[in-house]
Amino acid sequence: MTATGPDTPLLDQVNTPEDMKKFSDAQLRQLADELRQETISVVSQTGGHLGAGLGVVELTTAIHAVFDTPKDRLIWDVSHQCYPHKILTGRRDRMLSLRQADGLSGFTKRSESAFDPFGAAHSSTSISAALGFAVARDLGGAPEHGLGDAIAVIGDGALSAGMAYEAMNNAGHLGKRLIVILNDNEMSIAPPVGAMSSYLSKLYAGEPFQELKAAAKGAVSLLPHPLQDGAKRAKDMLKHMTVGGTLFEQLGFSYVGPIDGHDMDQLLNVLRTVKDRATGPMLIHAITQKGKGYAPAEASDDKYHGVAKFDVISGKQKKTPSNAPSYTKVFAQSLIKQAEQDDKVVAVTAAMPDGTGLDLFAERFPSRTFDVGIAEQHAVTFCAGMAAGGLKPVCALYSTFLQRGYDQVVHDVALQRLPVRFAIDRAGLVGADGATHAGSFDIAFLANLPDMVVMAAADEAELVHMVATSLSINDRPSAFRFPRGAGVGIDLPETGEVLEIGKGRIVQSGARVAILSFGARLQEVQKAAEKLETRGLRPTIADARFAKPLDRDLILDLAASHEALITIEEGSVGGFGSHVMQLLADEGALDHGLKIRSMVFPDTFIDQDTPEKMYASAGMCAPEIESKVLETLGISQIAKRG
Amino acid sequence: MTATGPDTPLLDQVNTPEDMKKFSDAQLRQLADELRQETISVVSQTGGHLGAGLGVVELTTAIHAVFDTPKDRLIWDVSHQCYPHKILTGRRDRMLSLRQADGLSGFTKRSESAFDPFGAAHSSTSISAALGFAVARDLGGAPEHGLGDAIAVIGDGALSAGMAYEAMNNAGHLGKRLIVILNDNEMSIAPPVGAMSSYLSKLYAGEPFQELKAAAKGAVSLLPHPLQDGAKRAKDMLKHMTVGGTLFEQLGFSYVGPIDGHDMDQLLNVLRTVKDRATGPMLIHAITQKGKGYAPAEASDDKYHGVAKFDVISGKQKKTPSNAPSYTKVFAQSLIKQAEQDDKVVAVTAAMPDGTGLDLFAERFPSRTFDVGIAEQHAVTFCAGMAAGGLKPVCALYSTFLQRGYDQVVHDVALQRLPVRFAIDRAGLVGADGATHAGSFDIAFLANLPDMVVMAAADEAELVHMVATSLSINDRPSAFRFPRGAGVGIDLPETGEVLEIGKGRIVQSGARVAILSFGARLQEVQKAAEKLETRGLRPTIADARFAKPLDRDLILDLAASHEALITIEEGSVGGFGSHVMQLLADEGALDHGLKIRSMVFPDTFIDQDTPEKMYASAGMCAPEIESKVLETLGISQIAKRG
Repeated sequence: MTATGPDTPLLDQVNTPEDMKKFSDAQLRQLADELRQETISVVSQTGGHLGAGLGVVELTTAIHAVFDTPKDRLIWDVSHQCYPHKILTGRRDRMLSLRQADGLSGFTKRSESAFDPFGAAHSSTSISAALGFAVARDLGGAPEHGLGDAIAVIGDGALSAGMAYEAMNNAGHLGKRLIVILNDNEMSIAPPVGAMSSYLSKLYAGEPFQELKAAAKGAVSLLPHPLQDGAKRAKDMLKHMTVGGTLFEQLGFSYVGPIDGHDMDQLLNVLRTVKDRATGPMLIHAITQKGKGYAPAEASDDKYHGVAKFDVISGKQKKTPSNAPSYTKVFAQSLIKQAEQDDKVVAVTAAMPDGTGLDLFAERFPSRTFDVGIAEQHAVTFCAGMAAGGLKPVCALYSTFLQRGYDQVVHDVALQRLPVRFAIDRAGLVGADGATHAGSFDIAFLANLPDMVVMAAADEAELVHMVATSLSINDRPSAFRFPRGAGVGIDLPETGEVLEIGKGRIVQSGARVAILSFGARLQEVQKAAEKLETRGLRPTIADARFAKPLDRDLILDLAASHEALITIEEGSVGGFGSHVMQLLADEGALDHGLKIRSMVFPDTFIDQDTPEKMYASAGMCAPEIESKVLETLGISQIAKRG
Repeated sequence: MTATGPDTPLLDQVNTPEDMKKFSDAQLRQLADELRQETISVVSQTGGHLGAGLGVVELTTAIHAVFDTPKDRLIWDVSHQCYPHKILTGRRDRMLSLRQADGLSGFTKRSESAFDPFGAAHSSTSISAALGFAVARDLGGAPEHGLGDAIAVIGDGALSAGMAYEAMNNAGHLGKRLIVILNDNEMSIAPPVGAMSSYLSKLYAGEPFQELKAAAKGAVSLLPHPLQDGAKRAKDMLKHMTVGGTLFEQLGFSYVGPIDGHDMDQLLNVLRTVKDRATGPMLIHAITQKGKGYAPAEASDDKYHGVAKFDVISGKQKKTPSNAPSYTKVFAQSLIKQAEQDDKVVAVTAAMPDGTGLDLFAERFPSRTFDVGIAEQHAVTFCAGMAAGGLKPVCALYSTFLQRGYDQVVHDVALQRLPVRFAIDRAGLVGADGATHAGSFDIAFLANLPDMVVMAAADEAELVHMVATSLSINDRPSAFRFPRGAGVGIDLPETGEVLEIGKGRIVQSGARVAILSFGARLQEVQKAAEKLETRGLRPTIADARFAKPLDRDLILDLAASHEALITIEEGSVGGFGSHVMQLLADEGALDHGLKIRSMVFPDTFIDQDTPEKMYASAGMCAPEIESKVLETLGISQIAKRG
């Protein structure tokens, strides 16, 4: 359907899954092949998540062929793998807008389609949500389309999160009809397994579940159980457990599997049987291969998990080189330097070694790097324990994922004043991943914790200093946040300097208005100031560095010596600006008038776009800052951005 | 040692565990008996947690006899069960100060004793923390006392939380020496089991672990596995799993058990063997009885989990009757009334049916009540799924525990605008449970989420209205918070009235100063106002009802018509007051001067005391409010509270 796309005669007939009902099984097999080619074609033009989608092409086709979506609720865990699903569910003609402004989300999204009954982007939520639908169905909830089956598709990696275990534990107890498909893409399918699975799959279709399970037990014992490394422990466990499906059966699930997740006949047989006969919670264990069917993806280490636009023939990605190193890399290199000087420094990631730069740290210090799996709660408290044991743990998480360990930050770290260091990546707006990945709330939820030190880096050189500073704080917890993407290209210091705690810095002195920046909006502030100078207005600019403790002297001085004080931060209300206003109010600095303004994210979730445009829509780029200054001072403006 | 205490000749010789090293096993048995009597005696005079402590008297004695605390780090999960531990570790003479101002904490606490290496009060953190100590030991962390073994004692209930699973998953992977003692107090020990365990225990002491495990496997198959109801699913699962310890072995732990946790000889033998021989992670499965050895506790349904002061002979508790119903009960009764009119209303608790009042709801609507276990992450997303499925879920949690489901509130509820209702109990300071249970942060971490409605009840009648209001909001999430304890005694409305969203109310009109209250400080505000009237100053008083959306008109009117505006809330900075200031700043209402003040919790964790005194120390009672008004207006004061 796309100009450059593959030949897809059957797919061209599918606007919604209803259109698939007329297809024979052989046609469904062909449809899956076409869907795979279409997915590759789309992502080659848009970039995005490829490997996960290719691994579930047959599964996606089979589920939509057998079940009655959207009445049956299909929930994709994390939903990196949802592109083939989007193509089959009325969104094919918009696929080239994927992850772009006003385009399709890279994830499932309720507001986008009735076929996305529950959005996702963070991991391991699908079983909880599906159980909610199952209960709603049985208690007479009556939303649009009626309510049929609830189906969660969850990867083996997502089962390392405690939340998935909590949900299975509850689902098994409730005993309601619920279908969980375990998309196990770590175990490669060797031919004997595939053959055995194929045999089993035929058995499944013809036999009642008890016997199916017995057959499955026999089959699984033949599967290889390769030892795996790193944070893949849960996956190991899972596989050991699925000898007979014991784990799931103990949790109250009926277990079928493992089956070959790329064998359409098996999938159709099993899903039809499950649809006809399941009474309680049911787990289908499907073995799939990430990147399946596209040679460059299969051959790649990361199976083309996330890719730039690429050439379909060669598989070569079109990555645009950056002039400056990423904040992530600067963080990692700074941490490595510090760790070379101090053998107490250790680092923890929750299944994101690449994203957090800890892959580099792990190369240098393998025994001092801990990937705990998708387990932020444990990650934080594990760090607290190490801190209590005399180490200097650095807990490296994205802002949005730190939300998962919030109680542990409060209860295990802050209450005990343990010197855990939080390296908070992806602070602020993040671009193509959109609203689900925005790091908007960490300033607010950390800065109100007693004794916490909260920093934000104005540029990558500041980040180097903050790594050093955080590691120097041994009597209480500290956090430093920094944005996604490339730094500003500033020279990096040879070694990080330990900053004075709770002290900001004046960037330039001016008059009438002071702009107090916390974090990486500083460059935009400076751009705005240049524009203002052309009007004869030179603002004072300060970099707060710390949201906690606040630089009282600096803030009170700025307030006393300017007509207006404007704070700016990459976060929501309740954070830095709120703390500044609380201070000024307490000190009576507002009693007699101060044009105080706090520029924070608007009270809305901001959809995907380029980070630059997202910040513009949040009103946080140079033109908006300039306008805010003029408006605050009551100076009439010529024109806004445009 | 206490005046009214039992005769405790051996216990009298124990100031620290070191003093126990000289005792024979027979003497240790006697010591445990004395410790039990002392524990009963103490709690009869102080109130607090009794059942859990009585269940681990032998375990506590044996651990301290065998291991070298505080060099070996002993971590009590949740730590309700830590009173016997406190008695043995240098705190016996302060036990009568338990849970009182300036007294011992009811939980383990790092700042209280070197024998409390990691504090707790929320559940399921102990394995993560112990693993942190184990890693620190192996990587040369060198805190005080050196670092020996890391020992976590965790109850079977605590294993329903995903966090415990995340920790075991990681511990099994790392393979470091680590001792987890599963204190399984749901399975009563029938005599045959005890006898068999006794036999096994002797085997354990003499044989290497492989054979121990085989013996354990044989033994456990003889144990009864009674079916259990409700949220006890994890416990069921656990017990099924421990047939041979499969679950733990698959997670990489060596398993020993089950053993009789009240048989000192067994315990000593097993612990000595483990201490001598364990190389990797080790799980000891001990069967205990909550309330063991005190007949009234054993006979009670809740095993005297939490008790008032009581008479040791009769077991009769000295509960002081309250004049007003508790907020919890008012919530439960209001919810029941609403649910009688609307069959879509369902309620979810995370293992706190009594604490949240949902036990009453469950009596009336058993099929519409869901106890999901200690699983707040799942609780929130399960509610989101039910809301998406057309039900009206009410997620009833304590403020402090909602922190555990924060990412789910953001990602699954708020981002999707799903109408989940959060009933937030124990908002604000909570008394004897102290800082770990304070509900200080929920206003801040909820009110910055787009589209969320956030309410706080000024009294129990307001709570009735807010239950009705929340259930009427079908297009977005909403939350209402209310404090621990008895209401103010106001008449309750027959039915809840649906409040206008985002509208507050004027309680009294006055001049010069307006006090804008959010939540249950309103009574203190009114008391302060009475005092101020005797000085000829009549403040305007308003009840904001909503922190989000704010009542813009009301707030701007109050600001425009008063010299001073003071907000007050039972929470930290970043919440209601911060939102009010943000609004006023944005609207230019501070440009020309307003004496704005925001009364929030001080920037410190507040230790246990009576709630009244905690609020006084937080500066939030009538005298402090009165002072704040006078100070803000620049009126000289005669004297402060005293």
